[in-house]
This record gives sequence, structure tokens and C-alpha cells, in this order.
Amino acid sequence: MNRSIGIFDSGVGGLTVAREIFSILPGENVVYFGDVGRYPYGGRSEEIITKFTVQDIAFLMEHNVKFIVCSCNSASSVALDEIVDNYDIPVIGVIKPGAQTAVKKTTRGRIGVIGTNATVSSNAYARTIHALNPDIKVFSLACPLFVPLAEEGYIDREATHLIARDYLQTMLDVEVDTLILGCTHYPLLKNVIAEVMGPEVTLIDSGEETARTVLKTLTDASLLNPRAAQIPAPEGDHKFFVSDVPERFAQVATRFLGQVVDKITRVDISRY
Amino acid sequence: MNRSIGIFDSGVGGLTVAREIFSILPGENVVYFGDVGRYPYGGRSEEIITKFTVQDIAFLMEHNVKFIVCSCNSASSVALDEIVDNYDIPVIGVIKPGAQTAVKKTTRGRIGVIGTNATVSSNAYARTIHALNPDIKVFSLACPLFVPLAEEGYIDREATHLIARDYLQTMLDVEVDTLILGCTHYPLLKNVIAEVMGPEVTLIDSGEETARTVLKTLTDASLLNPRAAQIPAPEGDHKFFVSDVPERFAQVATRFLGQVVDKITRVDISRY
Repeated sequence: MNRSIGIFDSGVGGLTVAREIFSILPGENVVYFGDVGRYPYGGRSEEIITKFTVQDIAFLMEHNVKFIVCSCNSASSVALDEIVDNYDIPVIGVIKPGAQTAVKKTTRGRIGVIGTNATVSSNAYARTIHALNPDIKVFSLACPLFVPLAEEGYIDREATHLIARDYLQTMLDVEVDTLILGCTHYPLLKNVIAEVMGPEVTLIDSGEETARTVLKTLTDASLLNPRAAQIPAPEGDHKFFVSDVPERFAQVATRFLGQVVDKITRVDISRY
Repeated sequence: MNRSIGIFDSGVGGLTVAREIFSILPGENVVYFGDVGRYPYGGRSEEIITKFTVQDIAFLMEHNVKFIVCSCNSASSVALDEIVDNYDIPVIGVIKPGAQTAVKKTTRGRIGVIGTNATVSSNAYARTIHALNPDIKVFSLACPLFVPLAEEGYIDREATHLIARDYLQTMLDVEVDTLILGCTHYPLLKNVIAEVMGPEVTLIDSGEETARTVLKTLTDASLLNPRAAQIPAPEGDHKFFVSDVPERFAQVATRFLGQVVDKITRVDISRY
């Protein structure tokens, strides 16, 4: 199965998921689409997010991918359930992997979820967690400033600590034992969030968990690239597509991915 | 001339300009379009911003407006000069009014401009200022976090002060005597910016200056609504259109406009 894995996101955030997939599945070919021309999704309506998501998937399908990962929490939350059955290949989001791990790790049945307005309003994490265990208490909180802070590289700054403390105080008040980072940008602020929440609270990175789910699903469905069995596995081909000029994407991608990204092509997503 | 004034913006920011226009020209009918479905423009490319701007103007033209104000600094900076001649009504942006006032007010010929990445990269303020007086020194600085901070109501907070101090230190270092708030969101942070810059620095609100230019241009062209001459002038009709669901716009608009906004209609801007 030499066909590629398709990953899409509202922009650069999904690169934290791509990084995990590259790391776990180095032999796989990957096509990444970042919708930077219409970014961000998190403050938009369900209807608009669904329209954009359908277009993003249509673009990846054109690349004959074998598997699609929606690495945007907002799109995964509000759009994916409704549309996944329309495709003849697996399309997975980041909610279920994050929710499943949180349910496994919670010690006192008190799980917090932080994300964008769209993710939090959708209640998708709480629904998924309750389907697994209805007794767990779920507390959700939108942290809209975390995305711009992460994008601007405002990571280890006093202002970011103050904002994190403001936002997360409610999570401390309700004494969650596990906190899901329900937005692909948030792993960049992991140290700040961990410091505010304290060592007792387990942080769940939905991106990491999603990468593990991709590995498992591909293995179970015998869809792994045969190259993956070679030792050492030859490195897969990684192609990047964006819906605006590639320069800024290239710049931020280097920070998010931890490696230089050069093969970036611009596409007109509105025609899909 | 009962025809409306058209105002468009990438989102809610232009409401600070609308507020000034409502205040100076209470008798005028106004059609406002906020492109919240594709907001923000400030980090996007010149090509995409120009495409969006042309669509926004096409939408307003359908409403038979007599005059168009582009209240988005990013669109004014990168798109407007190229396209204003394509229309048979006046289309003005926010750059020239702000630049003209700054040139009048500067005492030592050192003007600072703060705005989005798009506005700063375009160099539009500097070009306009130098066309008026080539001897003035212009210092430009992108402050990308100011927009999300203003939108989230993070106004009088310690974190906002710290970020403002980080950003504006370079403006203090180069000793500007006048600072243009080159983004319609920034007037909401005026107190914080004023505190960092100190009492010696004159702050120019491009929105305020643009409203004055609208009054002057309408007067000169005999395009004022005849109702404006009545005492007291009956209040004009204000219609609002947005490119995503109106709820969040309504909520933020109240803060930006200082009055409740109810007549909001959703439009599909991609078909223009």
C-alpha cells in the first residue's frame, strides 16, 4: 500500500499531529493540507466548518490517499461525525483517540478539556467520553488566546503564564485529574499548562494519541506501506499543500514540525 | 442622496470606524459588511486579501451605495490602490486619513505605525506619509497579538500590559512623537498603548480620521443625505451583514459599537 496518508488541518496546528505520525510511521508517504487561507476554524459556525471540511477531504481524495486524518479539533468536533460515512476510505479525527486515552488515565473520574470555542461548544469530547463511561465528570473550557500565543511563539513568557493562570483557574477549582489538550496548538504550550496545573494532573496530547490510532488502524487493515517492514525503513515522501502563499506556513511549520519544510504547493481550495 | 454609505471590514474591527461615522453622520443610512467567515485578513497574502476585497465591494455595490469605506487596514494597505479606479463611486480606505493627520501632528518628524503583518509588510502608511513629506522618519511594527487580545476583551489586564510593553519597546527606543493605531482593533487597547508610550506621544486613531474624511468627501461632492440638515436629524438606518452566523458578531459588536446590534443578515460572500 504505497498510497499516501492524507492529513488536513485549518492551518499549521495539525503539523503537531503530522510530526507524531512522521515519527511513528517514518516509511509512510504523507500528503498534508493546511487551510491557511481560511484559518482559523475555531471561532466559526458548524455550517461553515463542515463546508470547509468537505472541501479539504475532496482535495485529499484527489491525491488517491488510503487514509485521512483530520487533525483539526474544531473540524473533528463539529463536522466529522456527519460526513465520515460518505467516503470509502477511513477518515478519523482527533477527538476519539484523545478521549479514549483520558478515560484510561483518569484516576478520580474528573477530566478537563481545553480547546477552541467551536470544540468546546460542540461538546464532542464530553459526548465521546460519556459513551465510554457515563460516570466520568467532564469540564470543558475555551482558551481562545492560546492559539495566537502559540503561533506568535509567545511560549515561555510571563504574559502567557498569566493568561494560562486566568484560563485554567476554573480547571484547578473543579480539581480535574486529567486534562485533554483539545487543540493541536496547545502542545506548544505544554510546559506552561503543566506548570499551572501541577504535577498531579495528567496532560493528554490528542495529536500523540491520534498518531498511535493511525498506526493501529493501518496495521489492522493491512494498509501499512510495505517499506515500513524494511530495516532501516526508507523515509516516506512528505508533500505539503496550503491555501494561501507558502512563505508564512514554511516559517511556522519549521517551529511546529522541528524540521525544515520545503516542498509546499499552493492550491485554490474554494474550487473543491 | 438617500443612498447608503457602505462600510466593509474583515470582521468586527471596522465597527470602531462605523461608530465614528454614526456619531459624525447620524442621519446617514449605512450598510455594514463584516467578513467574519474569512476573518482575519491581516496574516494573509496580498493576492487573497485583494480577492476578498473585490468580493466585499461587489456585495456593497448590490446595495446601491453612494460611497464605500474600507475600514480594514490590511485591505486598505494591500488591495485598495489597485482597484479603486474600477468603480464609479468613491471608495476610500483608512490609510490616507490616518497618515495625513499624523503628518499634521508630528512635532519632531518621527512617526510610528503599528498594525497587522499585512499592513506593516505593505509599507502603505510609510509610502503615504513620504508622499506628503519625504523628510519624516517612519517606524513600522506588527503587533499580531493585539487583535485577539482586543477581541477576547483582554483589555485592562496585566498580561496585555506586558505584551504591549514587549511590542512597543522598539517604538520607545526610536523615540517616535506620534503613533498611528493602524488597525481598527487597536483603539480598544488605546489606554494600555497610551500608558506604555507615555503622555508625550500623540496617538492617531485611523478610524476617527476616516470618519472625518467621509464627512468632508460627502459634503464636497454634495452627497450628504438631505435629512442630515434637519434639526434634530432623524437617525439613519443601519443594516449589518456578515459571512458567518450572526451570533458571535452580535456579541462582539455590542462591545465595539457601544450599542446593541440586532438587524444582522448572513450572506454567502463566496458567490460574489
